[in-house]
Amino acid sequence: MITDSQIETWLREDVGHHDVTNQVPGETTGRLVAKEDGVAAGLDAAATVFDYLDVTVTDRVEDGTAIEAGDTVLAVSGPARDVLRGERVAVNIAGHASGIATKTDAAVAAAREGSPDDAVRVAATRKTTPGLRGVEKRAVAAAGGDTHRLDLSHMVMVKDNHVAEMGLEGAVEHFRDRVSFATKIEVEVEEPEDAPRAAAAGADIVLLDNMNPDTTERAVEMLRERTAELGREVLAEASGGLTVETVDDYAATGVDVVSMGSLTHSARTLDYSFRTGE
Amino acid sequence: MITDSQIETWLREDVGHHDVTNQVPGETTGRLVAKEDGVAAGLDAAATVFDYLDVTVTDRVEDGTAIEAGDTVLAVSGPARDVLRGERVAVNIAGHASGIATKTDAAVAAAREGSPDDAVRVAATRKTTPGLRGVEKRAVAAAGGDTHRLDLSHMVMVKDNHVAEMGLEGAVEHFRDRVSFATKIEVEVEEPEDAPRAAAAGADIVLLDNMNPDTTERAVEMLRERTAELGREVLAEASGGLTVETVDDYAATGVDVVSMGSLTHSARTLDYSFRTGE
Amino acid sequence: MITDSQIETWLREDVGHHDVTNQVPGETTGRLVAKEDGVAAGLDAAATVFDYLDVTVTDRVEDGTAIEAGDTVLAVSGPARDVLRGERVAVNIAGHASGIATKTDAAVAAAREGSPDDAVRVAATRKTTPGLRGVEKRAVAAAGGDTHRLDLSHMVMVKDNHVAEMGLEGAVEHFRDRVSFATKIEVEVEEPEDAPRAAAAGADIVLLDNMNPDTTERAVEMLRERTAELGREVLAEASGGLTVETVDDYAATGVDVVSMGSLTHSARTLDYSFRTGE
Amino acid sequence: MITDSQIETWLREDVGHHDVTNQVPGETTGRLVAKEDGVAAGLDAAATVFDYLDVTVTDRVEDGTAIEAGDTVLAVSGPARDVLRGERVAVNIAGHASGIATKTDAAVAAAREGSPDDAVRVAATRKTTPGLRGVEKRAVAAAGGDTHRLDLSHMVMVKDNHVAEMGLEGAVEHFRDRVSFATKIEVEVEEPEDAPRAAAAGADIVLLDNMNPDTTERAVEMLRERTAELGREVLAEASGGLTVETVDDYAATGVDVVSMGSLTHSARTLDYSFRTGE
Amino acid sequence: MITDSQIETWLREDVGHHDVTNQVPGETTGRLVAKEDGVAAGLDAAATVFDYLDVTVTDRVEDGTAIEAGDTVLAVSGPARDVLRGERVAVNIAGHASGIATKTDAAVAAAREGSPDDAVRVAATRKTTPGLRGVEKRAVAAAGGDTHRLDLSHMVMVKDNHVAEMGLEGAVEHFRDRVSFATKIEVEVEEPEDAPRAAAAGADIVLLDNMNPDTTERAVEMLRERTAELGREVLAEASGGLTVETVDDYAATGVDVVSMGSLTHSARTLDYSFRTGE
Amino acid sequence: MITDSQIETWLREDVGHHDVTNQVPGETTGRLVAKEDGVAAGLDAAATVFDYLDVTVTDRVEDGTAIEAGDTVLAVSGPARDVLRGERVAVNIAGHASGIATKTDAAVAAAREGSPDDAVRVAATRKTTPGLRGVEKRAVAAAGGDTHRLDLSHMVMVKDNHVAEMGLEGAVEHFRDRVSFATKIEVEVEEPEDAPRAAAAGADIVLLDNMNPDTTERAVEMLRERTAELGREVLAEASGGLTVETVDDYAATGVDVVSMGSLTHSARTLDYSFRTGE
Repeated sequence: MITDSQIETWLREDVGHHDVTNQVPGETTGRLVAKEDGVAAGLDAAATVFDYLDVTVTDRVEDGTAIEAGDTVLAVSGPARDVLRGERVAVNIAGHASGIATKTDAAVAAAREGSPDDAVRVAATRKTTPGLRGVEKRAVAAAGGDTHRLDLSHMVMVKDNHVAEMGLEGAVEHFRDRVSFATKIEVEVEEPEDAPRAAAAGADIVLLDNMNPDTTERAVEMLRERTAELGREVLAEASGGLTVETVDDYAATGVDVVSMGSLTHSARTLDYSFRTGE
Repeated sequence: MITDSQIETWLREDVGHHDVTNQVPGETTGRLVAKEDGVAAGLDAAATVFDYLDVTVTDRVEDGTAIEAGDTVLAVSGPARDVLRGERVAVNIAGHASGIATKTDAAVAAAREGSPDDAVRVAATRKTTPGLRGVEKRAVAAAGGDTHRLDLSHMVMVKDNHVAEMGLEGAVEHFRDRVSFATKIEVEVEEPEDAPRAAAAGADIVLLDNMNPDTTERAVEMLRERTAELGREVLAEASGGLTVETVDDYAATGVDVVSMGSLTHSARTLDYSFRTGE
Repeated sequence: MITDSQIETWLREDVGHHDVTNQVPGETTGRLVAKEDGVAAGLDAAATVFDYLDVTVTDRVEDGTAIEAGDTVLAVSGPARDVLRGERVAVNIAGHASGIATKTDAAVAAAREGSPDDAVRVAATRKTTPGLRGVEKRAVAAAGGDTHRLDLSHMVMVKDNHVAEMGLEGAVEHFRDRVSFATKIEVEVEEPEDAPRAAAAGADIVLLDNMNPDTTERAVEMLRERTAELGREVLAEASGGLTVETVDDYAATGVDVVSMGSLTHSARTLDYSFRTGE
Repeated sequence: MITDSQIETWLREDVGHHDVTNQVPGETTGRLVAKEDGVAAGLDAAATVFDYLDVTVTDRVEDGTAIEAGDTVLAVSGPARDVLRGERVAVNIAGHASGIATKTDAAVAAAREGSPDDAVRVAATRKTTPGLRGVEKRAVAAAGGDTHRLDLSHMVMVKDNHVAEMGLEGAVEHFRDRVSFATKIEVEVEEPEDAPRAAAAGADIVLLDNMNPDTTERAVEMLRERTAELGREVLAEASGGLTVETVDDYAATGVDVVSMGSLTHSARTLDYSFRTGE
Repeated sequence: MITDSQIETWLREDVGHHDVTNQVPGETTGRLVAKEDGVAAGLDAAATVFDYLDVTVTDRVEDGTAIEAGDTVLAVSGPARDVLRGERVAVNIAGHASGIATKTDAAVAAAREGSPDDAVRVAATRKTTPGLRGVEKRAVAAAGGDTHRLDLSHMVMVKDNHVAEMGLEGAVEHFRDRVSFATKIEVEVEEPEDAPRAAAAGADIVLLDNMNPDTTERAVEMLRERTAELGREVLAEASGGLTVETVDDYAATGVDVVSMGSLTHSARTLDYSFRTGE
Repeated sequence: MITDSQIETWLREDVGHHDVTNQVPGETTGRLVAKEDGVAAGLDAAATVFDYLDVTVTDRVEDGTAIEAGDTVLAVSGPARDVLRGERVAVNIAGHASGIATKTDAAVAAAREGSPDDAVRVAATRKTTPGLRGVEKRAVAAAGGDTHRLDLSHMVMVKDNHVAEMGLEGAVEHFRDRVSFATKIEVEVEEPEDAPRAAAAGADIVLLDNMNPDTTERAVEMLRERTAELGREVLAEASGGLTVETVDDYAATGVDVVSMGSLTHSARTLDYSFRTGE
């Protein structure tokens, strides 16, 4: 959730101690208008910026809506000074989140192209912008992406350093003992033959890290064979350097999840303008 | 400056209530290593993340340093649990800021190509990521860019809505009366013939908004002619849709400043990895 | 994790504007000593209180340690004024968390008595003290309990109001579409015959709510039969009014998890004293 | 007072980054209903939780009201998503505070049984739950208890370590010089014969620490005799290990105040449920 | 106590997003030097500013010390950038607090001149600068003044609006029932004849509001007579428009306390300079 | 801008944990009334205090208005408890800011007396009360003063230590390279002959530090002569020990700006009373 203290931080850093340009008397209206096509997100946050300033939000589209250049996504009404004060912050957060949603939407479309049964999930990672974890994860979700691990406490990721120390089976057992039944365990593997081992050790998900599509496909096959024997469901995730251009090849390997850090750390903004008094 | 409460926010959002994967006994070391060439930034922030966790920063390069893939930019030493807790946040902030610095560096190089006397400044805008204004502006500066207006109180920007209401000359006079002598006044104009008017009205800087290079060049000429008559120095800034690809054409027009929102709102991350125990 | 701002809040509320009783010159030592047997917890938080005050923690036992009356669990050294300032807050947080750990330990022992294979997990709930979610969950874990759902984003709980609106199968499908693959889904049922339905609908865990032990046992049997057919693992949790006295009867039903809100909301404190200068 | 930032902390720790279960459209109502008899408290805080979420509080009973199972203590109306988000936090804080109020009420009744003139005050201590000092003290007051010392700056407590260092008379004089005339001074004594000494030295209150009822009675007699000679009023407080079961014996000794840490640190919650849409 | 978040607020408001003037490499020392005679205060706060910046405080005088022009009151050593960043804030807080201490010292000296037995206390009020309650009250105490009521919860002040509503005796009884035995009750009166009434009603202190010295003296006499009959001690405080020039006349009336809002709300700063690298 | 968290800090420090004196039922009105003539400021902050408490502000004068004793500057209406809780904080902040505005107004009037063309600006400095930078700067502006440098990032001030290290010309060049084109550079000089040097080196403003009026006048003449040659505008500021009594002599020297730290650090409060229920 967006908190008031987060909004305060955003406004304070933009306004400073003595802002004279927005000292405008009277009331006005304002509209946040898309300047290009995309997927809207961050409007919940933008609306909260205006709420904090006691500006009324008169209309807005839902996060996740496909929008076209020229669409109004948020409309407000209130004291001119406060409408103007919220403008830049609202544009910045909406543009940032909508850029992520738009990139996610493209990645989901590309992945579905490659996916044998359209069921592949396109997930973000923990590579988010500091301070905006929630905003960015919700932007990914709004566009049909998967949020993946929200924080370190949400899911256990067994990494190479854990395996080096305790062995693959030992590490899974170690964490199974220490986390709640409510928490899934994912195991990161770098060799295809470790995928079935991880499944047998009790992983809920196996992350196939930095493999090319062919190797990924082989790992998925080995994993599926083993889980059929085990009679339990284990998901396969491909990760490491995937892009919107290459994601269909990974989707075609039969993995359940493809994850891409670039959804959150390298999306360009979606261009919005803010028009007042119209 | 980076404050402890900002670091807290970043760590808290990544750790959650019960993080078991980093419950590792003993001490370790860690290194933040570049995986591609670029310009380092955000290391001050990354170092403060580790300071907050009582992990010792044993070495680091200065923000603004040109780095190559494989370079260690930050080295730390401390309790394994705390080193691991800081890892993701440190990578995220350093990658974000270094991405901005690297893009700025490219834009500066491109602009200098076009600039008649190499003197053109490449500036960021207020289109920054909410919560990271300071980090992003300092990343721009570290790479040789210009921070431009830090917040609304730093410089007055006379915009079209002010001009519509008070006239160009009236608006400049209005703000000259209301801001400190310590504050510059920039006037945004959309027609070349308004550039000399703005100068005569008392602008310190004239922003030539959304003009193509030819029109920009004409506006600069008209401005220079008028300021020669006036015997006062007025800077010219070109802004609106400039990219790394087109910035040299704008630099060639003789403007003093070219500004690009994309430096901060649309830079991709610089790829870093964090290696422990080596 | 414990943050500095949380510690500040605790100290500020106890010290006030002008505290003269602790204006003692010189250095001193202090020890947190158990006055009764139990399980230690909250010492991480207590240690951070002293860290914040720049008092050195010279020794401490790990959270989760079984302690006896007379045991020193934390030892500190530093300026007398600061040692004394931290005393009450340290005692309060350690007593609170250790009380929860001690109650959890008793509940785990009782449940294991009843459990056919010792494998039952004793879990806390979201009924925690506002402001202390993390401290309390970690105290439960330290004593061998299960943290259960850490927050609303950690796991989906399908409740009766969701079922009323969308039907049991519809509700599970609704949430499966909307949450990450990283997130488990638990379904709350009030009738034994809904347990196998929930499993078939895709629940990862079925919560058997407010049933007596006999009904719980019947629900577990129906569930196990169905999951054997389905070839997938589904956990059973008993919840609603369980106490340390009755938990063994529930454990005996074969459920995987027994959960008790009273672990966190109704544990009495563990009695500690703080001795200085000895 | 309850501050918005405290409410934020409570909600944030319960909601997390991406809560899908409460993404319910439309408006609803909610009622906080007692599941057992007791004394209501914390409703001010619970109401502020809903205020923060822009949910309207349509009705509530005053803190301190005796309630019966089935009573509605708080009614709200607003967007379903926000009503549901506030539910758990509101139940937790109301249950916690009402548990303290209910225990206080029982202790007051028990003490009055023993008290010769019904005038004895039942007081809490500084042994409160970190972060909830104000909420807990106000719950004690709402049930007819006495808040005692609110923080270290509220009243001086002369403790054994002060006496060891400066002597009883010296310590009282030391603090009388250093605190405001607005601040009372209480002296903790462990031997009955120190009670009249403390009174003569200038104590406003004498705390009879860890004495059994007989010794307490003797100390009170010695104190009353001396204060009659001195012609000044000095209160007597019994403290240390008192319980609801033993408090009447202490009240019978003629002390003015009996204090019990367990009112705040070891009360069980009062059971509430939250019902929506009825 | 000074908290880190308070220090952060002070530094953040002075530094801004990109401060280049203090980007000085290397280490330096700094000294806070008095430019005029006075009484030092606020050095605890100034030292904490440097602590926050990881600058070492190598020496400092105690708050409350009489100082002369040229005296060094605080010496520090550390990275030049951080020493320079702390400079302005340290000077501002020390100057502000020392100005209050110096004025308090003058008022105490003046009051003692007039006081029959040197015993009169010179107290501050709640008229403090928002955000600096603790710093200012401690500055008053450091200079030998009395802090008076620290906050609304510290002592009950029965005011004219309470008396209007409940009558003087009714109001005192009302609050006696509602506050802790740990809390004193002061009654504000505007007519001398109400002073003995307030004492009889149970006031611990009577505030003689806005009376001239003669009327104050009469009120004190009437009060003393009544308290002699009652056999209880009741303090008399004179307040309302007292200045350093008139305080001796009030002290001469025999009141126990004279209070002056101007100690905190209208003291001029004490002039300090900060010298580096010497 | 005033943030909610700042208001919270102010209220929390004044209210404490259990404030019984304001527990008044029902609704009331309140008026903030001037007890002396002056210039109003801080009413924006005072209004926000009441907004935070959900008390309605029914009327108020603008900051900067000249007021007379007896004038109502702010009127509110709401729950009696909340009106009373806001009273003291509102009076304190309005009194503090209005005191600064009133002193600024006097200084502006005095300076204009001396100024040859009425054009001199009277500026504040960075010597503000920690935590109140924005409130105080805006109070200065409201009374016709000049805010001067808002924070370290707003303008570069080249100081003697920079000159000592890099030479005057070197220092100006150093900072010109490092700050934005949006930022002015002021150079502090102690000898008149350094004023023209600073202008030639590129200073936007020259601060004539600690000179008497005669020396100041000489420095201004030398500066004007040089800037006429240079064909660029450079402002002259006099600073160091100026008072309301001496400011006209400095204004008469022809400087553009006179600055006085005492406007913010040594103004006495403006006396207000708060009247309820009238």
